[in-house]
Amino acid sequence: MVGFVVGRVFLVEAAAMLFPLGVGLLYGENQTPAFLIPILLLLGLGLLLSLKTPQDRAIYARDGLAAVAFSWIFLSAFGALPFFLSGAVPNYIDCFFEAVSGFTTTGASILTDVEAMSRGLLFWRSFTHWLGGMGVLVFVMTILPTANDGHSMHLMRAEVPGPVVGKLVSRMKTSAKILYGIYAAMTLIEIGLLLAGGMSLFDACINSFGSAGTGGFSHYALSIGHYNNLYFEIVIGVFMLLFGVNFNLYYFLLVGKVREVLRSEELRVYLGIVGASVLMIAANIASHFGSFWTGLRYSFFQVASIITTTGYSTCDFNLWPAFSRALLVILMFIGGCAGSTAGGLKVARVAILFKGAIRDMKKMLHPNAVSSVRFDRKPLDEKMMHGVNVYFVTFSLVFTVIFALLCLDGNDLLTNFTALAATINNIGPGLGAVGPMGSFAVYSPLSTLLLSFAMLLGRLEIFPILLLLAPSMWSRRAFRKK
Amino acid sequence: MVGFVVGRVFLVEAAAMLFPLGVGLLYGENQTPAFLIPILLLLGLGLLLSLKTPQDRAIYARDGLAAVAFSWIFLSAFGALPFFLSGAVPNYIDCFFEAVSGFTTTGASILTDVEAMSRGLLFWRSFTHWLGGMGVLVFVMTILPTANDGHSMHLMRAEVPGPVVGKLVSRMKTSAKILYGIYAAMTLIEIGLLLAGGMSLFDACINSFGSAGTGGFSHYALSIGHYNNLYFEIVIGVFMLLFGVNFNLYYFLLVGKVREVLRSEELRVYLGIVGASVLMIAANIASHFGSFWTGLRYSFFQVASIITTTGYSTCDFNLWPAFSRALLVILMFIGGCAGSTAGGLKVARVAILFKGAIRDMKKMLHPNAVSSVRFDRKPLDEKMMHGVNVYFVTFSLVFTVIFALLCLDGNDLLTNFTALAATINNIGPGLGAVGPMGSFAVYSPLSTLLLSFAMLLGRLEIFPILLLLAPSMWSRRAFRKK
Repeated sequence: MVGFVVGRVFLVEAAAMLFPLGVGLLYGENQTPAFLIPILLLLGLGLLLSLKTPQDRAIYARDGLAAVAFSWIFLSAFGALPFFLSGAVPNYIDCFFEAVSGFTTTGASILTDVEAMSRGLLFWRSFTHWLGGMGVLVFVMTILPTANDGHSMHLMRAEVPGPVVGKLVSRMKTSAKILYGIYAAMTLIEIGLLLAGGMSLFDACINSFGSAGTGGFSHYALSIGHYNNLYFEIVIGVFMLLFGVNFNLYYFLLVGKVREVLRSEELRVYLGIVGASVLMIAANIASHFGSFWTGLRYSFFQVASIITTTGYSTCDFNLWPAFSRALLVILMFIGGCAGSTAGGLKVARVAILFKGAIRDMKKMLHPNAVSSVRFDRKPLDEKMMHGVNVYFVTFSLVFTVIFALLCLDGNDLLTNFTALAATINNIGPGLGAVGPMGSFAVYSPLSTLLLSFAMLLGRLEIFPILLLLAPSMWSRRAFRKK
Repeated sequence: MVGFVVGRVFLVEAAAMLFPLGVGLLYGENQTPAFLIPILLLLGLGLLLSLKTPQDRAIYARDGLAAVAFSWIFLSAFGALPFFLSGAVPNYIDCFFEAVSGFTTTGASILTDVEAMSRGLLFWRSFTHWLGGMGVLVFVMTILPTANDGHSMHLMRAEVPGPVVGKLVSRMKTSAKILYGIYAAMTLIEIGLLLAGGMSLFDACINSFGSAGTGGFSHYALSIGHYNNLYFEIVIGVFMLLFGVNFNLYYFLLVGKVREVLRSEELRVYLGIVGASVLMIAANIASHFGSFWTGLRYSFFQVASIITTTGYSTCDFNLWPAFSRALLVILMFIGGCAGSTAGGLKVARVAILFKGAIRDMKKMLHPNAVSSVRFDRKPLDEKMMHGVNVYFVTFSLVFTVIFALLCLDGNDLLTNFTALAATINNIGPGLGAVGPMGSFAVYSPLSTLLLSFAMLLGRLEIFPILLLLAPSMWSRRAFRKK
């Protein structure tokens, strides 16, 4: 069954590559084989793996984790081929990094001269953001021959970020279709608004893919700062924030459950953090830009870009005062809402961690008082609280180990720390040498692989990828037991 | 009852100040009033608070936390007076920082020219390390009119670091006496060994107080590097490591339970981390020092100093390569063993966090398998696991908030991050401007207070200090309920 799912993913990727191929042909670029070869490869492998429908269509927890992990690794491995075959990026590891960065919606780049790339490749790079944002397996689910609902839940749970995955409607397949429908519609609206402001169609697509997936690849060295256009900044800034909201809320809006949306505690915390951060940073950088209003303009865009883990920039925030930079780094770890296209720990988790800590402190003062943590006006069960704690602990341990390994490469500590923070949380640019004006090209091939691994860890919320390293994932006994 | 305990603490501090007063007189220094005034103040307040024995001698959980928190704050406030009254440090906030740094065994200093200080003050500074190391309330317990055992347990639990506090013998008072006996004996042995190597008595006392309390105040600008003497480095290095071990193990050794000691999982993990770090850093800095053996010498001393959260140095590790510096920062967070004089998260907690994360991942692969985390060959109960998780989460949240506030001061991010890491984990020197050759004088008075707060948070393991901020700690209703 794992092979079957991966096979379907290959077919989707083959179809997706037709778009950049078309864009390349449209602009008369001579790179057809760079796309055609991977398309044929994916088509062949995909058909081979998925034509024979497996008898046992059930997907168990372990299979779900494995299917998602393998899909994402192979997706990136094949997605890297166009960069490599076109000769645009000579080193395959760098191509792999770029593809992982695309699919995981990180937006970190090893390119030092992005403006020299062909239109077809640039389109592909940004299109991977769009595909990775809502999840490739969620898409596959919409076209998968209906398996048992409880089983496809395992796939969805492994790919959709956040501590809980709520079904919108009783059938998973329909839920997946609704989510992709909303996602596509919002992307089209953003493209329309950018076109209305006078942006070219190609640029509007690139920037909308980047904000919809909260990815952040730009085809200009100065990112969104290239346009120096307040209207574009507001449209892109607002849409980044919108794509950082739990998509379930949009569904509630569509079906008229407005109260459900207003009640969402995560949404309120998210907006609160955004508002407070924008104001604090604006005040902190006001003197840097000469006025509070200019500071507010840059602060709004950068906060929206970082908390949603997009990574676009309108100026070199690496030059901002320490307080603003520290807040941005903290926002990197917080991330967007659960069930959105954003990365990071997710606002819901951070809020639950805070509430849990406060509950436990109250318990110290009043050992006999009974109190439970309430979220969204409902009491949270202890299993869920435990899960959030464990996620945070595991995240921290993994972060520490990778950070130490990364430091073997010789870059300074701030660069290494923020490079890892920016990849594992799927943002893109960090501080120091990997700041918005820098590039991940400063890292050795080994570290580049390590950072690719970090991006996958972050996008799939650690466990699917980490479990690939567990011996019992591979043991025969475990396979038989299932 | 809280007042009664605090009163006793004042009397102990008054008695403790007689030592530096004597040292000052011995060296013919003219600073008698700087010690006499606080001694008289403490004596008066102490007698006032503690002479009338309260009728209700019970100490409840909340009272235990409050007594410990207040004791430590007042201890530092009065301990700062000699620096202030002698005129050696003109700003009282700086004096407070220095006293907190002493009692919490941090060893961070705002002094820019330590060698200009008088002998009496230097002795007091280092003596606070010794007092704070094993805990002032543990000492008070040895002289307290015996209250109910279960109640003094609350005091001990709030002051002795680590996830669990084991009683050595059935009576708490006897336990406290045994601990202080071992502590004093080991300190005397270290003084003896240093004297045997030709160190002056004054220096031997200062350095032994600093290593026994895992504090790290030195009276030389170059710290232990001043002597450039391999024998001293080995003695101090080994004793720092010894004082970073759970003192219960020494008691077991004394009563002949050697197997109990060899079985200790925390001890084995601790020695494993020390061994691995020493070798890795030695290899990493070998080229810096020209040979692996010289690297090993500096690596051994620095690892011993940092993991035990002492903070002595024999060279400027701020100049080491990124990997070594990153490892040292990670060791800062790990810290020594529970029930030792060291700070940090404690080896036991880190080991339990790791094991818990691995257990939970196994559970994801095999949801139906029953598995518990074993530590010291015994299964850990879930409540204990939860406590460790919550401690880590709260620590991280508090760290993040203080870090952001500290960045308002304008120093660079690395300096701020490591300054906080070095204070909240009670080490002393960090990296950047607060490196071993730097000073905390770079911070504004407000940040100096903030860092003092961080040191107290770290030494008392967060909750006693943090709970002072809880409104219900102060509410009348809660007081009546107890």
